[in-house]
Amino acid sequence: MKPKRIFNFNAGPAALPLVVLEEIQANLLDFGGSGMSITEVSHRSKWFDDVINDAIARVKRLFKLDDRYHVLFMQGGASMQFCLIPMNFLGDGDTADYVNTGTWSTKAIKEAEIQGKRIQVVASSEDRNFAYIPKDIQFHRDAVYAHITSNNTIKGTQWADLPDTAGVALVADMSSDIFSRPLDADRFGLIYAGAQKNMGPAGVCLAIIREDFLDRVPERLPAMLKYTTYSAKNSMFNTPPCFAIYTVQLVLKWLEETIGGLVQMAALNQRKADLLYGAIDGSAFYNGTADTDSRSLMNVTFRLPSEDLEQKFVAEALQNDLGGLKGHRSVGGCRASIYNPTPLAGVEALVDFMKVFEARNG
Amino acid sequence: MKPKRIFNFNAGPAALPLVVLEEIQANLLDFGGSGMSITEVSHRSKWFDDVINDAIARVKRLFKLDDRYHVLFMQGGASMQFCLIPMNFLGDGDTADYVNTGTWSTKAIKEAEIQGKRIQVVASSEDRNFAYIPKDIQFHRDAVYAHITSNNTIKGTQWADLPDTAGVALVADMSSDIFSRPLDADRFGLIYAGAQKNMGPAGVCLAIIREDFLDRVPERLPAMLKYTTYSAKNSMFNTPPCFAIYTVQLVLKWLEETIGGLVQMAALNQRKADLLYGAIDGSAFYNGTADTDSRSLMNVTFRLPSEDLEQKFVAEALQNDLGGLKGHRSVGGCRASIYNPTPLAGVEALVDFMKVFEARNG
Repeated sequence: MKPKRIFNFNAGPAALPLVVLEEIQANLLDFGGSGMSITEVSHRSKWFDDVINDAIARVKRLFKLDDRYHVLFMQGGASMQFCLIPMNFLGDGDTADYVNTGTWSTKAIKEAEIQGKRIQVVASSEDRNFAYIPKDIQFHRDAVYAHITSNNTIKGTQWADLPDTAGVALVADMSSDIFSRPLDADRFGLIYAGAQKNMGPAGVCLAIIREDFLDRVPERLPAMLKYTTYSAKNSMFNTPPCFAIYTVQLVLKWLEETIGGLVQMAALNQRKADLLYGAIDGSAFYNGTADTDSRSLMNVTFRLPSEDLEQKFVAEALQNDLGGLKGHRSVGGCRASIYNPTPLAGVEALVDFMKVFEARNG
Repeated sequence: MKPKRIFNFNAGPAALPLVVLEEIQANLLDFGGSGMSITEVSHRSKWFDDVINDAIARVKRLFKLDDRYHVLFMQGGASMQFCLIPMNFLGDGDTADYVNTGTWSTKAIKEAEIQGKRIQVVASSEDRNFAYIPKDIQFHRDAVYAHITSNNTIKGTQWADLPDTAGVALVADMSSDIFSRPLDADRFGLIYAGAQKNMGPAGVCLAIIREDFLDRVPERLPAMLKYTTYSAKNSMFNTPPCFAIYTVQLVLKWLEETIGGLVQMAALNQRKADLLYGAIDGSAFYNGTADTDSRSLMNVTFRLPSEDLEQKFVAEALQNDLGGLKGHRSVGGCRASIYNPTPLAGVEALVDFMKVFEARNG
């Protein structure tokens, strides 16, 4: 019997490419002729070495990283990074700049402040419920880093271009748009991303760190809280989350070999977003919540004329095999997350449903 | 085509019950009729709530935990717990006792010391390369906790009985023998275990914490480093490692429903260990490395007459579909890890092979 599959617009954990799931399934009892599952092979084996090293090589190729950059697989999600970043990079007298563009930026700021670190919030869009990305920000030349959230999953906004930071290295939470478009990696001291949106299952966090940031890590920290522990041991100081890393490897393989790379991925993502925002802008029934020039290509947030209609919309969509369209519980409304793995056909089906729903309820 | 499967004696990641892997495989594209993979459903959905709550209920039943105990799913493995335990439980002026029984105890001690916490190593078996479990230990009545490693994966030793701690609550790393036998949970303030040996895949760490230990957690710590963050949010302050928790749930279901619980599991584990130690003790060719009264029922460590023969043994065993028999790289020799999922048939096949190998090479 063919398994039931729906179009999945969840914000995270989110859709994975079907071919990736099928490959995992086919090899689950016998990975690479080992006679063991990928969950059963030793992380010190050639089988797993090949997995993690291939995943790292793909990250380096996709972002065109030079040898200054180390690719790490960590645990605890982006939330753990919020705490590790100031702990590892800010010594006595150091300061960092933060831009507050929503829920996750706010948490990153809080985790620095609770450690008593000196940081400055140089811009915020809180005045209008984070509906836009701030412009013309004055960063401090003496800041160790400038922290941004490249895409705001909950508020539906995204940095279209990187800000001018007066030469300060960027540190960016890219959990919800990593590998969705080409990147000027040179600008970054650290890029981090929980895998469960654009890149894999929950349970692994990618960190791409530049050598001068590794040099800032103090010796006297617990082993698991230091980036240098991971860089020194190829992310295997202790047992890594093998299954999650394996899935990331397969997603990156799909991105390189099936999609063709980040230029092709960006074009497809633009096409999906244009289709969906076009449907919203062409209707008085649906209203986008983010400013037009700050719109996310990943998380499309919109409202209907009433909360009752929003509930009905989400429920009827699911009956039509379109899942995960409810907005985040903190903001309400509707949200369609259209990450890399979401196929164009899924967005087309959603737009068709939106038209039918409006005709019946508008 | 039937997938190849070997008997897997890896120390971790380690064997999983075949029925668990088959259930994961069968449902990988459509979990519970959701039309999504378990890796794609939201952690805020009813689908995942059922998974995590069932896993918690099984932990509580298996260990007969009363309401003072909270069952948490965390990330970073036991190594992260080494750092969190002193950070969360030892305030100014507090002290804790540690027993050093091997590599992992040593790491736990180091992670307390690097934070400048006051701890005392009350016993150690380092004098004889950790080949035994210390006896008649004098614990300090004013210690906040007494830390032990219940089973020493690398050295092949295990606490047969819990030590008399003069009323001090135990904190135990049970990564390599959790759920292998019934437990007097009342003795413990915290039990923790990386899943990848007895309980599931790498990428999730179980923590069972008593309320008086939660009460010790200071307010002013980063969110991801506080046990209270996990207890307050049912381990979902941020996205948990859903796939790993799901697999743990299925392993615990197998343990309760197929094996019949911890009494039955302990009897089976004893039978497996007796068979293997019997083969070692009945031969002058194989030599166990742990003292007889300190032997682990989980990790059976032994030497052959020479390193050349050990290499040959490991290689020929693998040709006979008996994998993972090499000792830890830090100690050499051979090791058969026979955790809960290892079937009796696997141990029987290993013992048969050992006899044949000895006859040819002895």
